[in-house]
Amino acid sequence: MAGSSSETSDDGLPGEFEVIRRYFAPLAAGMPGALNLTDDACTYLPPAGEELVLTADALVADVHFLRNDPPDLVARKMLRVNLSDLAAKGAKPVGYLMTVAVDHAVTASWLANFARGLAEDQRQFGIHLMGGDTIRTPGPLSLSLTAIGTVPGGRAMRRRGAQPGDRIFVTGTIGDGYLGLRILRAEWPDLSVGYRQFLTDRYQLPEPRLVLGREIMAAGIATAAMDVSDGLAADLGHLARSSGCGAVIHAERTPLSGAAAEILSREPGLLPKLITGGDDYELLLTVRPENAAQLREIAGKAGLLLTELGEMTDSGSVGILDRDGAPLDLSQRGYQHF
Amino acid sequence: MAGSSSETSDDGLPGEFEVIRRYFAPLAAGMPGALNLTDDACTYLPPAGEELVLTADALVADVHFLRNDPPDLVARKMLRVNLSDLAAKGAKPVGYLMTVAVDHAVTASWLANFARGLAEDQRQFGIHLMGGDTIRTPGPLSLSLTAIGTVPGGRAMRRRGAQPGDRIFVTGTIGDGYLGLRILRAEWPDLSVGYRQFLTDRYQLPEPRLVLGREIMAAGIATAAMDVSDGLAADLGHLARSSGCGAVIHAERTPLSGAAAEILSREPGLLPKLITGGDDYELLLTVRPENAAQLREIAGKAGLLLTELGEMTDSGSVGILDRDGAPLDLSQRGYQHF
Repeated sequence: MAGSSSETSDDGLPGEFEVIRRYFAPLAAGMPGALNLTDDACTYLPPAGEELVLTADALVADVHFLRNDPPDLVARKMLRVNLSDLAAKGAKPVGYLMTVAVDHAVTASWLANFARGLAEDQRQFGIHLMGGDTIRTPGPLSLSLTAIGTVPGGRAMRRRGAQPGDRIFVTGTIGDGYLGLRILRAEWPDLSVGYRQFLTDRYQLPEPRLVLGREIMAAGIATAAMDVSDGLAADLGHLARSSGCGAVIHAERTPLSGAAAEILSREPGLLPKLITGGDDYELLLTVRPENAAQLREIAGKAGLLLTELGEMTDSGSVGILDRDGAPLDLSQRGYQHF
Repeated sequence: MAGSSSETSDDGLPGEFEVIRRYFAPLAAGMPGALNLTDDACTYLPPAGEELVLTADALVADVHFLRNDPPDLVARKMLRVNLSDLAAKGAKPVGYLMTVAVDHAVTASWLANFARGLAEDQRQFGIHLMGGDTIRTPGPLSLSLTAIGTVPGGRAMRRRGAQPGDRIFVTGTIGDGYLGLRILRAEWPDLSVGYRQFLTDRYQLPEPRLVLGREIMAAGIATAAMDVSDGLAADLGHLARSSGCGAVIHAERTPLSGAAAEILSREPGLLPKLITGGDDYELLLTVRPENAAQLREIAGKAGLLLTELGEMTDSGSVGILDRDGAPLDLSQRGYQHF
C-alpha cells in the first residue's frame, strides 16, 4: 500500500500517504510482514502443511451498498461476506488486502468510521490488513478485497463432490437477510422493534460460520460445501451443477427465524422470495447418509441450527417441492447484481 | 469468481457467469486450485520453506489508463506493474486475483482483447489467474489486482535496511516511461519512429526485473530494494525514509536510453523531469561498498545495465546534485494520482 502523494487535496482529505498512515496502517499492526504498509508488498509464511485459500470480491457504492450506509457496517459486511467464503472451505482466516477507490464525497470521518469497522471485525475474527492501494475515482466509491485463509493441505471443502443420495443440510435460518433489506427500505413498519433489529442485523452483519466450517472440514465428512450468498435456490443449483448431479429439497423444511415466520404468517406467498433472496451467508452442505448423524452432532456442539432439506439426485435438475410434492414456483432465482 | 446472473444484458455483454466462463476461466486453466473459477475460492500450496509475497493495486479508466488504450496493453501493464513489485522483493510470481468493475461502454470485444493481453503475459511470466470477481459499475471501468509470489522464508528484500555508506544502484534506464507518455500525447513528432516506438513500449510494456531481482535476493547482498514507479527522486526518498537515513545521488549519472538522450540534447532542462517522472519499473538497490562488485557481476551476467548513482548518508535528507555539486531544482517529485 505505497502512496504517490503527500499533498492535502481540495475536499479536506489528506493525501494518499497520510490516509494510509492514519487510517489503514494501524489495521496492519498485527501482521509483521505488512511492515506498517510502508513497503510495496506484504510477506506471509503459512503454517507448515497448510495451503492457502484465496477469494476476491468487489463492491460499488449504490450497487452493492448504499452511499449513506454506516461506513463501519459497510466495512464489516465486506469482510464477513468474504470470511463466509473461507468458512465454506473450512479455512481459518489470516488477513486481507484491500483497494479503496475514493470518490469526492468521501470525508475523513467516513474513512475513520470505515477503518473503525474493519478494526472491530479484525479483532473479532483474528485477522489483519496485509496491504492494498488507495486511489481516487471520478466514479462511485469502490472497494475490492482479497481475503486469505489457510486450511490443511488438500482438505479444503468444495462445491463439487456431492453424489446422488447425499443428504443436503443448511445451517442457521434462511431469508433473514432478504427481509432485513426490505425492513431497511421501510417495509413492515408495525413489526416489533426486536424482530426489525434482528432482521436488519442479519442483513448488515452476517455471521460467517467459521468455527463450524472448520470443524466439518476437520471431520472430513462434507462431500460438498458452499456458502449461501445468492439465495438458497440458486446456490443449490451451483452446488448441483458443480457436482454433476441434481437435487430435491422440500420448501416447507426451510429453517425460518421467529421474525421470518412472523412475516410469512402475514404473507404466506413470500416463501419463494425467502428461498431465492440471498444474503444468508449460511453453509450449504452435503454428506453421505451414514455421516448425517455426525454432522448433526458437530452442529449441535457448536450450538448452531442445522436442517436437512432433501437429497442429491441423479436427475440433473434441481427441484424445490412444495407441501404437495409439486415444484414450487420461483419467479426469480438468485440475487442479480450484474 | 462466482457470478450472480446468467442473463444477457442490454449492452450485448453476456451475464457475469458467461463473462467468467468465456473470458476469464481459460486464464485459470493452469492453476488447479482455481477449479476453472467455478468455486468461491482458490487453494494454493506454496513450495515448502517459501513465504508468500502479496501486493495489490487498483486502476480506474481515465485516471490510470485511457479508456481508448488498447485493452491488451492495459491488461499487460497492470500485470507488469505488480510483477515489478514482486521483482523488487526477489519473489517468483505465482498468480493473481483480479476484480473487474465493468461500465456500460465495455464491449465483448474489449473483454476479449483484455483477456488476450492477460493470457500473453501469463505465458511470458509463468503465472495464472487464481480468482476474482466481475461486477457492473455506473462509474468508470475499474480494475483491482492482487499479485502473489513466493520467496524463500525470511529472504524478501525490503525498502528498509540501507545504511550510511551503502552504494545506490539502479537498473536499466530512467525517464523512458515519462517520455513515452508524452510521445503518446503527440509530443516530439519529428523524433525517429524507432525512438518513438521504444519510448512508448517502455511506458506501455515495462519489463519487470524478475530474474535479476531473484538473483540479487539469492546473493543476499541488497541492504534495501524497491522498484521505481513514482519517479527516481520520490522513490529514493521512500527508501531513505524507510531506512532511517539520507542519500546523495548525482543527476548526471542518471542512466539514459539513446532515445531519452536524444530528447535531452534538444531540451537540456528536461533532466529533472526524467528523474521525477515515474513509470520506470527499474530496481533501485543499495549494497555495502564491499558488495558493489558482486552486484555489478550479477547484473552483467543478466545482461542488464546497472548504474551507481551515489550513496546513502546519515544526513536524514535526500540530495540530488547537479554537475557542480549543487542541489538540482526538482519542481515536482513523483507522479501523483491521488
